[in-house]
Amino acid sequence: MALSKKPYKGSRDFFPSEMRIRDYLFSQMRKTAHSFAYEAYDGPLLEEVKLYKAKSGEELINEQIYDFTDRGERHVAIRPEMTPTLARMVASVHRQTAKPLRWYAIPNLMRYEKPQRGRVREHWQFNVDIFGAPPVLGEVEILSLIVHFFKNLKADQTMFSILVNDRKIVDAIFNELLQLKDDEAYKLYKVIDKAKKVDDAALDKMISDILADDKKSVFKNYLALSNHLELLEFLKSHKLSDQAQEFMKIMENCEQLGLLPYIQYDPTIVRGLDYYTGLVFEIFDLNPENRRAIAGGGAYASLMKIFDEPELPGIGFGLGDVTLKDFLETHKLLPDLAHASNDLFLCHTEDQELIATQKLALVLREQGLKVELNLGKMKFNKIFKTAESKGHQYVAIVEEKDGHVQVQIKNLPTREAKFFQLSDISEIQNFIKDK
Amino acid sequence: MALSKKPYKGSRDFFPSEMRIRDYLFSQMRKTAHSFAYEAYDGPLLEEVKLYKAKSGEELINEQIYDFTDRGERHVAIRPEMTPTLARMVASVHRQTAKPLRWYAIPNLMRYEKPQRGRVREHWQFNVDIFGAPPVLGEVEILSLIVHFFKNLKADQTMFSILVNDRKIVDAIFNELLQLKDDEAYKLYKVIDKAKKVDDAALDKMISDILADDKKSVFKNYLALSNHLELLEFLKSHKLSDQAQEFMKIMENCEQLGLLPYIQYDPTIVRGLDYYTGLVFEIFDLNPENRRAIAGGGAYASLMKIFDEPELPGIGFGLGDVTLKDFLETHKLLPDLAHASNDLFLCHTEDQELIATQKLALVLREQGLKVELNLGKMKFNKIFKTAESKGHQYVAIVEEKDGHVQVQIKNLPTREAKFFQLSDISEIQNFIKDK
Repeated sequence: MALSKKPYKGSRDFFPSEMRIRDYLFSQMRKTAHSFAYEAYDGPLLEEVKLYKAKSGEELINEQIYDFTDRGERHVAIRPEMTPTLARMVASVHRQTAKPLRWYAIPNLMRYEKPQRGRVREHWQFNVDIFGAPPVLGEVEILSLIVHFFKNLKADQTMFSILVNDRKIVDAIFNELLQLKDDEAYKLYKVIDKAKKVDDAALDKMISDILADDKKSVFKNYLALSNHLELLEFLKSHKLSDQAQEFMKIMENCEQLGLLPYIQYDPTIVRGLDYYTGLVFEIFDLNPENRRAIAGGGAYASLMKIFDEPELPGIGFGLGDVTLKDFLETHKLLPDLAHASNDLFLCHTEDQELIATQKLALVLREQGLKVELNLGKMKFNKIFKTAESKGHQYVAIVEEKDGHVQVQIKNLPTREAKFFQLSDISEIQNFIKDK
Repeated sequence: MALSKKPYKGSRDFFPSEMRIRDYLFSQMRKTAHSFAYEAYDGPLLEEVKLYKAKSGEELINEQIYDFTDRGERHVAIRPEMTPTLARMVASVHRQTAKPLRWYAIPNLMRYEKPQRGRVREHWQFNVDIFGAPPVLGEVEILSLIVHFFKNLKADQTMFSILVNDRKIVDAIFNELLQLKDDEAYKLYKVIDKAKKVDDAALDKMISDILADDKKSVFKNYLALSNHLELLEFLKSHKLSDQAQEFMKIMENCEQLGLLPYIQYDPTIVRGLDYYTGLVFEIFDLNPENRRAIAGGGAYASLMKIFDEPELPGIGFGLGDVTLKDFLETHKLLPDLAHASNDLFLCHTEDQELIATQKLALVLREQGLKVELNLGKMKFNKIFKTAESKGHQYVAIVEEKDGHVQVQIKNLPTREAKFFQLSDISEIQNFIKDK
């Protein structure tokens, strides 16, 4: 029986047309990271499972990782997320490296998920992290990097919002105000995560299952807070504003830098089961038909402990290629990538021009041009149609004219055509560069 | 017990200093591929094992693949090579795609190998393939792409050589001249693979174990051929030159294009256990201390069959990042990548300049500059030393002068310094672009 031509379930074949989109996304990621002087890193595809056990949530380990035992009896997993690898790498060099460390990566990751819109088993994730930054300034840099990234993609404040909160504030409310026990706090984190996905009655019911009436009304007041100034008033009224000092400074600095139109306080952002200890945030698509998180991140204080290393605070986020592409498609922000971006379609019409054509291709490539060489001769009347179907702007035809071999170059959109000697390389370059 | 900070055996942590080298290699690969109008593709990390069973050698399946059964009972493997994925993808689109298909990829691959110089468990491989090209011209394009790639890396004909042969010629010698049975041919392929690694006596012994004396002397004459013209004479003397027609045309076209200084006929290149059916080649490092294959490839006629698809001939090669880096290091061809290539180190010395400095950073980044912002103030006398240690050419210091805030920009190598208003963005850009 013939083998299947389909890719493994939940993963994708990137044919050139899809790959151009991926390359566009990745190049925008790299460009943004480099604008902020973040350096690229990468780690292994496999890590020992005990690294994830120390760092990742139980659901991930038990239900989602691709783990197996290798031929040397090591229990390993294909990386489901980058942070454990990042933590391991930073732990091994941070003592001899100047601070802050500014690192980014675009790794492929695998999780055993039920494939659905925005969710696949293999995806790529833009990971950006800063370690050892002064308080507030590191958080603000990461937030401004995100805004810069989306602005580069032509997205504006009507399309996305960075929803922010602070785990120190949530902890103060849970521990000091509501005085929750650990298991109650755990349940309430889960409820908060679902707060936006259920209606008011269902939410009320879930909260009632955990909190008594007096606490419930305080907690519902918290959930109703709609901006960081209301939050500050709420905390002041409960004598908890000290725990919000850093968060308020972050918001103040963002306001000074003109970032506030892109940033919104949201009490339901807690990222409760993750390792965050300060600022937490999610980037939300504001399109009513696609309201979902495009990315998430925050500040974490204690990733080094599991390696017996001194602590080093970090702030970072992960942004998946699938949700980003959905976002850009929803808002019609993807550029036209229907064709490869070659400089020239180079042909000849008679066999005796083969060598001259091949040679011209090599010389033009040495000058940095992207030359699509037509292998073998092509009939004159087929050339332009073929070139247009491939999205070329320029066509070059090597042909005999007036007794010696020349090259005719035509600008297809303007219909301008010009003849060159085969040795007129810089003239040819100039003609094409005018585009 | 603390967790290990080491990467999984045979894989690598790419800290920024290593990543700069990898990014350099990858960018050269992409640049070359784009020069020849090859389009990027990628496939899934996992494929079903039966795909590899249909296409790859037994040693790979039995000893080297990372295979496991997923949570849905599929027997899968992390891709050990790209060609089976490529074949699957091409099979699924080639009937509705214009020929030739020119595709490249730089996937990460995993094989369970004993780590040693030039050999790791996880590596990246530059894969370039052309499908549906006219005979001879496709082969020549792939060979000229390789030469172009190495010339771009500043390698010359004293450093590397493309050793070539043709499976049709080897088959003619094995089947028609030596009249070997299948098992004898299989053994002799293995001997040829080892021919360069053992001394003459050992080679003689290995051949004697397979061939009778008369055949042995013919075969040793074959092994002694040192260029394609000698090969042609040898084949003519045995009335086998018909089978070398295509190979000789390839060599002739390479000569016409000035590629022969980089290409060498070698009777020991057979790639016997692979799927090649025509031209076969290996790229060899000519350094006597590192004589080894950097890459291998060839022409294959029948990759589509296992998918019940019409045949489509292809030519391609795979080139690993580890062997390429070894080659460049051996010949001292790696550029200086000691530092990140940022445009500007931006600082302030007093707290009251913080906001102005942050704002300047954002504006310069919007103009495309790579700005490393020093978070928090820095003492004036530390700034230049810090910038130099990070490899910066330009330093910008936001400071108060004559009662208003300005920015001083200094070109560290030339010692030239100039003051600008914070709003003089294009003047700042011009000053920096002069570098």
